[in-house]
Amino acid sequence: MRYREELDTPCLVVDIDRLERNIAEMAAYARERGLALRPHIKTHKTAEIARLQRQHGVSGFTCAKLGEAEALADAGVLDDVLLAYQIVGEQKIRRLLALMARAKVTVAVDGVEVAEALSRAVREAGKTLDVLIEVNTGLNRAGVEPGEPVLRLAREVVQMPGLRLRGLMTHEGHVGRARTTEELAQMARRAGTDMVESAELLRRAGISAEVVSVGSTPAAFYTTAVPGITEMRPGTYVFYDNASFRFGRIGPERCALRILATVISRPAADRAVVDAGSKTLTMDPPPPDRSGHGYVVDYPEATVVRLSEEHGVIELPPSARGLRVGDRVEIIPNHVCPTVNLQDELFVVRGEEVIGTWRVVARGKVR
Amino acid sequence: MRYREELDTPCLVVDIDRLERNIAEMAAYARERGLALRPHIKTHKTAEIARLQRQHGVSGFTCAKLGEAEALADAGVLDDVLLAYQIVGEQKIRRLLALMARAKVTVAVDGVEVAEALSRAVREAGKTLDVLIEVNTGLNRAGVEPGEPVLRLAREVVQMPGLRLRGLMTHEGHVGRARTTEELAQMARRAGTDMVESAELLRRAGISAEVVSVGSTPAAFYTTAVPGITEMRPGTYVFYDNASFRFGRIGPERCALRILATVISRPAADRAVVDAGSKTLTMDPPPPDRSGHGYVVDYPEATVVRLSEEHGVIELPPSARGLRVGDRVEIIPNHVCPTVNLQDELFVVRGEEVIGTWRVVARGKVR
Repeated sequence: MRYREELDTPCLVVDIDRLERNIAEMAAYARERGLALRPHIKTHKTAEIARLQRQHGVSGFTCAKLGEAEALADAGVLDDVLLAYQIVGEQKIRRLLALMARAKVTVAVDGVEVAEALSRAVREAGKTLDVLIEVNTGLNRAGVEPGEPVLRLAREVVQMPGLRLRGLMTHEGHVGRARTTEELAQMARRAGTDMVESAELLRRAGISAEVVSVGSTPAAFYTTAVPGITEMRPGTYVFYDNASFRFGRIGPERCALRILATVISRPAADRAVVDAGSKTLTMDPPPPDRSGHGYVVDYPEATVVRLSEEHGVIELPPSARGLRVGDRVEIIPNHVCPTVNLQDELFVVRGEEVIGTWRVVARGKVR
Repeated sequence: MRYREELDTPCLVVDIDRLERNIAEMAAYARERGLALRPHIKTHKTAEIARLQRQHGVSGFTCAKLGEAEALADAGVLDDVLLAYQIVGEQKIRRLLALMARAKVTVAVDGVEVAEALSRAVREAGKTLDVLIEVNTGLNRAGVEPGEPVLRLAREVVQMPGLRLRGLMTHEGHVGRARTTEELAQMARRAGTDMVESAELLRRAGISAEVVSVGSTPAAFYTTAVPGITEMRPGTYVFYDNASFRFGRIGPERCALRILATVISRPAADRAVVDAGSKTLTMDPPPPDRSGHGYVVDYPEATVVRLSEEHGVIELPPSARGLRVGDRVEIIPNHVCPTVNLQDELFVVRGEEVIGTWRVVARGKVR
């Protein structure tokens, strides 16, 4: 029986051949360029996919939250992790120390207080913690500004016992706001240059900065083209999503994860309702030049115009009006990472056949 | 120790006194009006809260998905449930039949094919299934149009062996688009009148329609004021949220659920970053007249301007610039239902003290 009929819906279906191709391609790129590849696990949160990434070659993994790293360590796939996040508060520091006993851990810091609290804690525990300074290259989220502010923080951090400053990291996620490939490339190069120049500034001041780490799937092949970048941390590339299409390189046929949904109502000629709502597709917005809550694979002209939690309302062009109650459709989500975070498992297919189920072990690990 | 310091973040904190007041108020309203109260469990997905609702008086519960009903049945709190959803497909019908052995079940139907498939299945199983016709009163999701189309479907359904037509249901969620209380009241009354008139049409045709069921928290006190409505199915009222404020009756002090978050970065004078991003707050949009991704309780002038999955970026007015790394803040989500769906547990407080943890047993039950 084909997976489209066999599986109960809505569910997430992973095409293992596409997945492996995506993983292999990024690993080959990193290898050819001599870059360390440290994928962000937030996209898949799954031990089996982390294992596939390891088979193709990685230098370690990236997590945002301690809970994600703990879940992967429990699953036996974590030996080297960057927590690309500010670790703040007593509870978190206690858990960080415990994680350091299970894996090689590096954390991000973007302020003196955060770094001092870590220094105090690891010193008391008789440990040494690797840190990277988080740099704001344009996303305007966390991170210190490139250049002098980075150097100022670095001068403080190198004085702090228990911390070993390894270099710099950024998430150049603001490239997602670009409207053209040219603009994307330009923003990414600017971010890469800011990073490399900041690292140079440290080195000229006698502070070592062997790691210069960037991370963003859309920018992956642009930021890393700047000489001096040493590490890349893409996440979305394992699956890709609706947001990946607009820069041309990736089309739906490269998307390794689809939402399988069932038409549950055909209340009007131009309207179908499917059983995947915001609890499956998420309310993450489409990329700037597109509309709707996902890409309907069999009917690209159809638009998912509205979601409530358990209903997806699809506006049908005349070509798609043959859709009937009970029909199955596949939808590529706007943003695949939060989509995976809503599910307990991924259904794995090879061609038409279901070959397994993978548990999303780091789902919901927000702490 | 106060819960604000004790709990690791981000997490969901439920104030049990506020929760009980909200539950008691709605139960009293229904009782005074002689309405059946059948709360939608999608807001809390929690056995303990379903039990509190039962203690205050309910005639049953409403679920969207079979999986929610199964989880509550497993927890021993489900004896009478309306599945306010179209049950489509073999797998779902098999599960429906199993659920009917554990609880009294009513389902929604909005089309002949859906009803026929149910009729076939329950007849083969030697059972009888109660159904309500789902009516579209303006949300334009599923549901047949009021008036003649309802009557046409009713005439077919009453012929189908194994089905017992009990009446009509609608979700008048479109009232959320109203800009003023007057407009809200008008839209809700229109929906209520459409329902009552459609039920009358059935009765005049000799078809019984003892249930006329409506469901929406913002419209709760308006739709049900139309004589002839017999049942209400509010959901959000147990907690309320940011979307509940704008019609005046509910203020932040009535919100029984808050997100506790920690400031993890203060990269600029007017910017704080908290550890609650879209994986905690959701990307659900604010109500039409507000902006941002939630209501910051201690700093209502602050705006959660941007979310990524694990970061909430807050723009700070001059009055809130004292916020420091490590400080805790409480945020009321734009839409509480999907917020709860992201968490495995709720932390229950009375005053300042943590008195328990409730598991979100129906979390992620999208099937």
